[in-house]
Amino acid sequence: MTKCFWNGEIVPVDTVAISPFDLGFLRAYAVYEGVAAFDGEPFHFDDHYERLRASAHTIGLSVPYTSEQLLTTLREVLRANELSKGRASMRIVLSGGEADHGIGYNPGNETCIVLAEPAKEPAYTEGGSLLLHEFQRNLPTCKTVEYAVAVSLQAERVARNAAEILYHTKGELRECATSNIFLVKNGVLITPDKEILLGITRKITIDIAHSLGYTVEERTVLLTELETADEVFITSSFRDIMPISHIEDNTVGNRKIGPITETLIQAFKKKY
Amino acid sequence: MTKCFWNGEIVPVDTVAISPFDLGFLRAYAVYEGVAAFDGEPFHFDDHYERLRASAHTIGLSVPYTSEQLLTTLREVLRANELSKGRASMRIVLSGGEADHGIGYNPGNETCIVLAEPAKEPAYTEGGSLLLHEFQRNLPTCKTVEYAVAVSLQAERVARNAAEILYHTKGELRECATSNIFLVKNGVLITPDKEILLGITRKITIDIAHSLGYTVEERTVLLTELETADEVFITSSFRDIMPISHIEDNTVGNRKIGPITETLIQAFKKKY
Repeated sequence: MTKCFWNGEIVPVDTVAISPFDLGFLRAYAVYEGVAAFDGEPFHFDDHYERLRASAHTIGLSVPYTSEQLLTTLREVLRANELSKGRASMRIVLSGGEADHGIGYNPGNETCIVLAEPAKEPAYTEGGSLLLHEFQRNLPTCKTVEYAVAVSLQAERVARNAAEILYHTKGELRECATSNIFLVKNGVLITPDKEILLGITRKITIDIAHSLGYTVEERTVLLTELETADEVFITSSFRDIMPISHIEDNTVGNRKIGPITETLIQAFKKKY
Repeated sequence: MTKCFWNGEIVPVDTVAISPFDLGFLRAYAVYEGVAAFDGEPFHFDDHYERLRASAHTIGLSVPYTSEQLLTTLREVLRANELSKGRASMRIVLSGGEADHGIGYNPGNETCIVLAEPAKEPAYTEGGSLLLHEFQRNLPTCKTVEYAVAVSLQAERVARNAAEILYHTKGELRECATSNIFLVKNGVLITPDKEILLGITRKITIDIAHSLGYTVEERTVLLTELETADEVFITSSFRDIMPISHIEDNTVGNRKIGPITETLIQAFKKKY
């Protein structure tokens, strides 16, 4: 039986009973983190905690646990699920708890759930494809549970065998539904810097690229720049660095996993 | 013990156990309706059902109940809570049910909750006040559970004793956090028509205004038009028509409940 953390306890996930008055369920008033774990240890936990705290602050939500307490909790959830070896995918949801008059938040009664499941090490033998969708998230730097548009696009994504959905607006790239995007052009990495979620895998990738001597441009990226990119890849906690070979029906570069993408993927694995 | 409808049954609300994998909780993939009821009968149920269906359609969510089935359910929830006399406030939440791979929706496993609570008949002896907030909802015509910004503003609203939060963007009025807005100028009703939720109380109010011979302009409304409005009011299922006497620190008209607002409030009550 899968176990999870629910408001202070490790319990079988089937016994969790979220109230219909919970502000997470009733009003999408909740923040979210997806965290990779390796051999029982959450990866870059401090970065995830800091973003969770910042997201919560943006919507006025209190985080009832210190960084140390939440890290201990994540380790306990991994142990309870016998995930002390290999890779795991974890999710943290922190909501405002039961609503006051259907919409008010009373600090001190938050709902916190931590889930974990076993995951395979990503191993890309070919690139995936992206679908395009014109969309701009509200509160883009804030990682709330606002993924309704992302969910609504999954059926088409699966039907078209695509890896991800790439959001763009006003002719500019933003981010993918659950990942960040990078282009490589003439040996330079290029990635959007505004109106997006600043991903932790994105940050680690930029750090790795710098350490390998690559130039990284964090700037406005036009949709048209996709056409001339030599390589494209996406980054997220559950994918690490994933090569992209197609965008809609267009081929990226030479279709194969690009050399810089491959170099970054290998360097990333050494960070675990 | 308060009772509610949960996936086919009327149960005590404390026994509802929403899963942490529910797409409503995990991904805000859910649609919402707030419905007034009078003497055991939902008010303008057909309009609410039609909007629920349209909202669900927008995000690709299936509605597992016909209009007749859901109406019967709402009546049962009212009866189970002994709300067969007087006014009640009802909420319907329909979510995608348990997530597939954390983000996918499998039609046929939706979660549907119907809640009811007793409500007092709104009786306004003076006007309320509005706070301003620059914001544009995503999927504005779609009534999802995306209310995180609305929730985040409630503490300030309560602290400043305001009735509602008025969203505006690019110098144009949109809607309030949980209601629509109307201005009255020179005997004409003016209300925004784009990038907003098309409220059912808004629609009923427009119909009443027409029947009383007033002109109603549904159009782009500038923020600056608030300054010269003779009367302002807001509309929602739980408020009916609520007069507004102040916007931030500015007085609307002569501060009192305006004569056209009062006429509409009285005419609205005859519709129950």
